[in-house]
Amino acid sequence: MAKDFITRSEDFSKWYNELVLKADLAQNSDVRGCMVIKPYGYSIWESMQKELDRMFKETGHSNAYFPLLIPKSYLSKEADHVDGFAKECAVVTHYRLKNNDDGDGVIVDPDAKLEEELIIRPTSETIIWNTYRDWIQSHRDLPILINQWANVMRWEMRTRIFLRTSEFLWQEGHTAHATKDEAVQETLQMLNVYADFAENFMAMPVIKGVKTENERFPGALDTYCIEALMQDGKALQAGTSHFLGQKFSETFDVKFTDKDGKLKHVWASSWGVSTRLMGALIMSHSDDEGLVVPPKLAPIQVVIIPIYKGNDQLGVISDKLANVIKDLKEIGVRVKFDDRDNQRPGWKFAQYEFQGVPIRLALGSRDLESGKIEVARRDLKTKETIDFNGVVDHVVKLLDEIQLNLFNKAKTFRDNNITEVNSFEQFKQVINDKGGFVSAHWDGTTETELRIKEESSATIRCIPLNNEKESGSCIYSGKPSPQRVLFAKAY
Amino acid sequence: MAKDFITRSEDFSKWYNELVLKADLAQNSDVRGCMVIKPYGYSIWESMQKELDRMFKETGHSNAYFPLLIPKSYLSKEADHVDGFAKECAVVTHYRLKNNDDGDGVIVDPDAKLEEELIIRPTSETIIWNTYRDWIQSHRDLPILINQWANVMRWEMRTRIFLRTSEFLWQEGHTAHATKDEAVQETLQMLNVYADFAENFMAMPVIKGVKTENERFPGALDTYCIEALMQDGKALQAGTSHFLGQKFSETFDVKFTDKDGKLKHVWASSWGVSTRLMGALIMSHSDDEGLVVPPKLAPIQVVIIPIYKGNDQLGVISDKLANVIKDLKEIGVRVKFDDRDNQRPGWKFAQYEFQGVPIRLALGSRDLESGKIEVARRDLKTKETIDFNGVVDHVVKLLDEIQLNLFNKAKTFRDNNITEVNSFEQFKQVINDKGGFVSAHWDGTTETELRIKEESSATIRCIPLNNEKESGSCIYSGKPSPQRVLFAKAY
Repeated sequence: MAKDFITRSEDFSKWYNELVLKADLAQNSDVRGCMVIKPYGYSIWESMQKELDRMFKETGHSNAYFPLLIPKSYLSKEADHVDGFAKECAVVTHYRLKNNDDGDGVIVDPDAKLEEELIIRPTSETIIWNTYRDWIQSHRDLPILINQWANVMRWEMRTRIFLRTSEFLWQEGHTAHATKDEAVQETLQMLNVYADFAENFMAMPVIKGVKTENERFPGALDTYCIEALMQDGKALQAGTSHFLGQKFSETFDVKFTDKDGKLKHVWASSWGVSTRLMGALIMSHSDDEGLVVPPKLAPIQVVIIPIYKGNDQLGVISDKLANVIKDLKEIGVRVKFDDRDNQRPGWKFAQYEFQGVPIRLALGSRDLESGKIEVARRDLKTKETIDFNGVVDHVVKLLDEIQLNLFNKAKTFRDNNITEVNSFEQFKQVINDKGGFVSAHWDGTTETELRIKEESSATIRCIPLNNEKESGSCIYSGKPSPQRVLFAKAY
Repeated sequence: MAKDFITRSEDFSKWYNELVLKADLAQNSDVRGCMVIKPYGYSIWESMQKELDRMFKETGHSNAYFPLLIPKSYLSKEADHVDGFAKECAVVTHYRLKNNDDGDGVIVDPDAKLEEELIIRPTSETIIWNTYRDWIQSHRDLPILINQWANVMRWEMRTRIFLRTSEFLWQEGHTAHATKDEAVQETLQMLNVYADFAENFMAMPVIKGVKTENERFPGALDTYCIEALMQDGKALQAGTSHFLGQKFSETFDVKFTDKDGKLKHVWASSWGVSTRLMGALIMSHSDDEGLVVPPKLAPIQVVIIPIYKGNDQLGVISDKLANVIKDLKEIGVRVKFDDRDNQRPGWKFAQYEFQGVPIRLALGSRDLESGKIEVARRDLKTKETIDFNGVVDHVVKLLDEIQLNLFNKAKTFRDNNITEVNSFEQFKQVINDKGGFVSAHWDGTTETELRIKEESSATIRCIPLNNEKESGSCIYSGKPSPQRVLFAKAY
């Protein structure tokens, strides 16, 4: 399967595109920029959703659902939000088709024009805050801690499967609070949830930070983010959590009577991750042999392949394996026994390797005699023969080991690719030759930020939250800088 | 809470609308015909999704995701499908807004007109079959057993929350098979899954049947359905499963090489249930005191309310309950301990009763002394005092009992409301006065079906699958009829 597969070093971008297709994750559709997420890809997304949803609920959130379509006027109510979102979006103008007079096909019925155009949500702050106005009167109605799993649409000019598509799937949390402090705490709590998920489930190390003013979400007072590093040295923003202050409550007139009897505007946060995480997962771990999926998110954690000739042998092997499969399932391991007779073992080995199944067990007649079983791990591409009797314990331990190994490998790579520089010359050299994150002094102005971007294609990914304060001079302007920030070329 | 709540007999329709609002299930949005599903309502929908998704996966299906937008031309490819779906739908014509020249708000950018308009999916057969063409070459690629959880949109003129909304949430299964027989089996299997779910989880008895030609899904050769009876005597179609034959594979040119080496068109099924089930659930069980939710779908199955004065008493009561709560959670019972101090017990009682929580436990200081606890059940509105020590076992048994009682009650009601009639006079009288299902002979023609509908507002809900063959004369035309069919006024 991987025979004619391009390598990362040959062309990382092409490697990614081919991997997404050949591993049956997703494909482009005929509708510009919209993807089809295929069953195997979707099952990984479902694993992600399941864990995130659990984490959201454990931190007190409930799911709800708001309309897909947003009246045009809502988007133009919040000034920053307009500039950020009201532009490249899908606009519904009519609500009916009719048969073409020439009898061939259908046309848009000109009599069915909407009075006000509707926008397919690029994000839901406006329609949700317009609804919260009805829900909030008193401090007793607060906090509101709601999440929505939904599709959204932004009419992107250059699309890339999973990473930047016109339609994508995501979750968007929208919370309302009585005090600024609570809203800030919520914003940071959800940033920590995202970091926890990225590191402990995706095995993807992330840097928690805050965005510069220029990179903020339209309408936010502060945008926090987790930034990851892909194997090609480009950064990827994997999740954002926004402190929205009172902007949306002011715009949509959402007030509450506080304990002191005074009428106040509500404080807000919003936070989201999307199917973009699929792209991040792929580019963090996968290799020239195909996809690598961390055990905690793998739809199939262990595949078991019998090596047999004829149904008699298959029967004996299947009997021998029945208890192993049962035991693994009972302790929650996602195991697949592939005894299809229309494909050879070698073909199956290649397929599961390419699709990133963490552990492969193979059992043949000779193993039966010797009381052994072959165990192969996808991350290191090693295999060993172990005692059949210990296989369940071995697999359980190995899944943890693989999960940890993937994280450590990615972390070592990431840590080796954070470079401190002290001049703009050095900056451009590292950005162009080595890649990765570049830690450098910046004078804090949007002007300098944009010039650096123009001259190097690198953007400020974030000001890390755990930053040490260190006085210095901006690498571009030479002006004083209170701390280093992280630059990178980014997805 | 239920004080100023209207009764079912006063005005069933108004009762339904008020219940949906006051029980915090959903509300209308500013966008015509689109609803906001509130957290409590959404959590019931999540319970439904969870069980259905498990059932789909147990029968071999995988989830996937296809684009929201469908090119206009796709909808007009399948002739029946055009007439059924291509008319009342949301049409995207532009992909950009721009600032208004007068500086006030945004307008649709006339330069950003799409070459081909895009339709927000009313259902996804066309885009999915257009995709399956790439996926299917050989009989080895079959069957394809895919389900999609998604939002869809049909521009309904008269909308009713949950029952008929412009946007709704649903699942749509789309399967592809090598033989007609397999596709028919799949269609019937999914009908049975739906009936199982309706009866054993929603506690809602259903009649499995097949639709008349006139009521078929546009493009289907046969539409199977489950039909339920609401408390006001109107029927509700709760789920449909369609045998699509080769219509979509012919339209989208999806062929495979069979084992005999011949090129053949693929056979298809599609099947779906939607948030309409929320309406069905409400109208099946709820009463003049509010919502009634069957235990298997209740987000909160047991609420425990401490009756206390001051924190000392609360502490003692909470300690006493800690093990009960732990034990219930361990065996998978969804339990909520509501020890809020800003609401009185009576207010809480009323709230949970109105929201249909199946069991309420209340524990006060006096109960502590006597070793008792109060158990109230929502379905019968009875309460009893039992020994504290047996409460966990009691609750578990009671949940099953309530589930069964709700089903039996609904089934008795339904069975009592199937009336056999033998003349059109009698037919109209029963339809208008008693309501419910009317079992009557029909001559099998669409002409008669439509006339009956015109003169009585009743439609043929289905030809029940377990129908006894019984010759007779059509109640309307007097022509020969091979069997009775079920009529009703319907949602």
